Amino acid sequence: MSGAIRVGVLGSKGKVGQAIVAGVQAAADTEFTVGVDFGEDLAAFVESNTQVVVDFTHPDAVMDNLKFLIDNGIHAVVGTTGFTQERLAQVRDWVAAAPGTGVLIAPNFAIGAILSMYFAEKAAPYFDSVEIVELHHPHKADAPSGTAGRTAQLVAAARAEAGCAPMPDATSTGLEGARGADVDGVRVHSVRLAGLVAHQEVLMGTQGETLTIRHDSMDRTSFVPGVLLGVREIAGHPGLTVGLDKFMDL
Amino acid sequence: MSGAIRVGVLGSKGKVGQAIVAGVQAAADTEFTVGVDFGEDLAAFVESNTQVVVDFTHPDAVMDNLKFLIDNGIHAVVGTTGFTQERLAQVRDWVAAAPGTGVLIAPNFAIGAILSMYFAEKAAPYFDSVEIVELHHPHKADAPSGTAGRTAQLVAAARAEAGCAPMPDATSTGLEGARGADVDGVRVHSVRLAGLVAHQEVLMGTQGETLTIRHDSMDRTSFVPGVLLGVREIAGHPGLTVGLDKFMDL
Amino acid sequence: MSGAIRVGVLGSKGKVGQAIVAGVQAAADTEFTVGVDFGEDLAAFVESNTQVVVDFTHPDAVMDNLKFLIDNGIHAVVGTTGFTQERLAQVRDWVAAAPGTGVLIAPNFAIGAILSMYFAEKAAPYFDSVEIVELHHPHKADAPSGTAGRTAQLVAAARAEAGCAPMPDATSTGLEGARGADVDGVRVHSVRLAGLVAHQEVLMGTQGETLTIRHDSMDRTSFVPGVLLGVREIAGHPGLTVGLDKFMDL
Amino acid sequence: MSGAIRVGVLGSKGKVGQAIVAGVQAAADTEFTVGVDFGEDLAAFVESNTQVVVDFTHPDAVMDNLKFLIDNGIHAVVGTTGFTQERLAQVRDWVAAAPGTGVLIAPNFAIGAILSMYFAEKAAPYFDSVEIVELHHPHKADAPSGTAGRTAQLVAAARAEAGCAPMPDATSTGLEGARGADVDGVRVHSVRLAGLVAHQEVLMGTQGETLTIRHDSMDRTSFVPGVLLGVREIAGHPGLTVGLDKFMDL
Repeated sequence: MSGAIRVGVLGSKGKVGQAIVAGVQAAADTEFTVGVDFGEDLAAFVESNTQVVVDFTHPDAVMDNLKFLIDNGIHAVVGTTGFTQERLAQVRDWVAAAPGTGVLIAPNFAIGAILSMYFAEKAAPYFDSVEIVELHHPHKADAPSGTAGRTAQLVAAARAEAGCAPMPDATSTGLEGARGADVDGVRVHSVRLAGLVAHQEVLMGTQGETLTIRHDSMDRTSFVPGVLLGVREIAGHPGLTVGLDKFMDL
Repeated sequence: MSGAIRVGVLGSKGKVGQAIVAGVQAAADTEFTVGVDFGEDLAAFVESNTQVVVDFTHPDAVMDNLKFLIDNGIHAVVGTTGFTQERLAQVRDWVAAAPGTGVLIAPNFAIGAILSMYFAEKAAPYFDSVEIVELHHPHKADAPSGTAGRTAQLVAAARAEAGCAPMPDATSTGLEGARGADVDGVRVHSVRLAGLVAHQEVLMGTQGETLTIRHDSMDRTSFVPGVLLGVREIAGHPGLTVGLDKFMDL
Repeated sequence: MSGAIRVGVLGSKGKVGQAIVAGVQAAADTEFTVGVDFGEDLAAFVESNTQVVVDFTHPDAVMDNLKFLIDNGIHAVVGTTGFTQERLAQVRDWVAAAPGTGVLIAPNFAIGAILSMYFAEKAAPYFDSVEIVELHHPHKADAPSGTAGRTAQLVAAARAEAGCAPMPDATSTGLEGARGADVDGVRVHSVRLAGLVAHQEVLMGTQGETLTIRHDSMDRTSFVPGVLLGVREIAGHPGLTVGLDKFMDL
Repeated sequence: MSGAIRVGVLGSKGKVGQAIVAGVQAAADTEFTVGVDFGEDLAAFVESNTQVVVDFTHPDAVMDNLKFLIDNGIHAVVGTTGFTQERLAQVRDWVAAAPGTGVLIAPNFAIGAILSMYFAEKAAPYFDSVEIVELHHPHKADAPSGTAGRTAQLVAAARAEAGCAPMPDATSTGLEGARGADVDGVRVHSVRLAGLVAHQEVLMGTQGETLTIRHDSMDRTSFVPGVLLGVREIAGHPGLTVGLDKFMDL
């Protein structure tokens, strides 16, 4: 018997699920056991001795899935959305009753995006100015993106904590919107361009120098390395963890 | 006697003038004759057999300077601002009476900026989307920059001429200003950041690919190569020329 | 009957062919007639009143395809490789005998790449330094890329023609390879990185400023807009045309 | 009496020294006391109640300067080069005998460069590929730059420590130098371009995404914010500290 981690996938036939299955199959240290899709029996995970299940399904289904997995001592790596404080508290209660079982719930599995936010937060207090430019395909409905808004909030909080002065800005005349949206004092600009996928730049500047942290998502499978990281680390982190960054050495 | 072009400078002791004098002295094919500053006698250019005079002075002084230079058959390369249609007509009359004498009046001598605008105009009709991000030091008063506004107008006109469809943009929810300023249908975003000088990106995208034209001005002497280009070409272009692009093989 | 251009596709079931069919179907001014794949009868194009056929097939098949299309007065837009001078001469003979029929053979249909090369060639003589950085996925076998090599040659030729001085470079000590490959005096650097697709930057600099032309191919369908441009223009360009740039207003 | 930190400058009339004096004068929480240049008496620092002295002088002078400052209980922030292990040991002995006095010796005061290296080291183990592109003015003698070489070493060490697999690279044919220099398995590319100052990109990629950390030094005063950071923190860090990063919350 190999030492590979035995991984099952919920929603394995959807686009996201297929990419995860392919990623699990391609990695040297993970082994794909079984996929369970809508309407199928979760017992397949138990029968196949699955150690970790990845759940990118639907808010309506994820709580039942987690109850089953935790009851059976199977670790869960979850990208499904819709986790309120109430839901998190419920999951925390369940895992408390299942010592050794781990659940990771993360809003974002793109390692580059997580590092980008973390570095922006760390660096922001050392610069006079910080602005964010996010660039996406033109089918996106919201501007700015959720990631850009969240990054701006982290930057603003880090600067407030460090007692930074307000950013310099002598703009006195101009066109409406030129200076972007204001998120807690951090300017955020949203570019929408055919041909792009999902990209973000955090620009930071002080006297004579700038530091730019740029994240480019080139395709929809960029969450796969993060999911695999979660799969590898979950057994070593029993209980509920929120955010993949907790599994990274930051 | 050397074959170098004999070049004089008006306003030679100002910051801009000093950079031009240094540029003329450093180039192998130009020779600095004399500088004339506020209150000094223009006759020095005649006495020194100056062939071309560079004028980066003041709107109050430039017309008298040009009258003198044209009357004496000396070519002029002019970066001074404030040329109305009336002033241009006046200069055109003067040079008509001085066959062989050339005057170049240009709002912008940064070769990179001129090429950037020209390329944006050429390329824009071939893409579904075009947006502009301009980035400057935080002491700048206007947003967007004049160059970005002008670039957006050129892009919009080129697309209208080619019969391009409106750019795709599904934004339906968001924060005010996130999508930038609207200049004739082209979105323009203005970043203001300590440490920056003057920078501009024109982003163009279509299915599966993007083309970005970026211009970076790193210091205030970036007009020097353009002034030297004007100095070299002016003798071959008698009459009034407006815009350095007319001397370029575009 | 609509005024849309009636377009057929050779090799319609391959990856490239499928993307072209989808592009033809999605565009408002083109209509997909029929696809013909390996072993199927080309007569389907005649029977369906196809006006333009797109051929992205194989060097072994393309000459027979072209003979048939030209004989039947059907325009051809060809992305298949392997055209030697002999083959081009043969096609030129065929179309000479079929007045009004157009054939476009192009090595590259990515509009951004074509513009990128054209702009690099135009701009290069106005700068002291030009270097190229190309960035691709790590499965690529050649370094530098063919496009980067070709761009460097165009830049070098344009600079030679304009009588530019050699580029400044004071490097006197360092590690082997740090300064990249030398293509006709132009330095070319090849980055290979997981997550990338196909990207190229042409960097040009002179005193105080730089101009960067960046092309990003985000996915394998970036040739579609160029193919559609060829399809729209071919009827207006009878005879043989080599290179999509000939159909662009450059 | 104000609560501002009283700061003196050694080598105050050199280019670097002048920028430091200007920075100390411009900051709200620091006050310039006195500058001491080559051949002048260090006693001026004592007489002026200087609390911190900044030393960007010469390897031949710096040890005598430090002996004097430490003996007089004045903190030192040092950018002078040439510190061997022997010299550092000597300084460590001196400060051991002067409790409460702090000495900071740092090879690099550009905050952006320090953060750039730190982030590259942190992020590198999470990506399949890491390469470095550094871009400088063409008067630079060494390629790659010292910072790029050091960054590559840090990246390589972090990846070795984390047990990362070798980076994927299918290059089998190409031109010599195209793939850059090899520094401990990390590819480093050196661009030399007129108009540039000092710039560096660390590119990291994994499936479907890339993270880029870019540092731009726009002018030679980019060390000033780092020197001021050192000045503000030194009183709280008695003893010898090597590296400005030790004063940052990383």
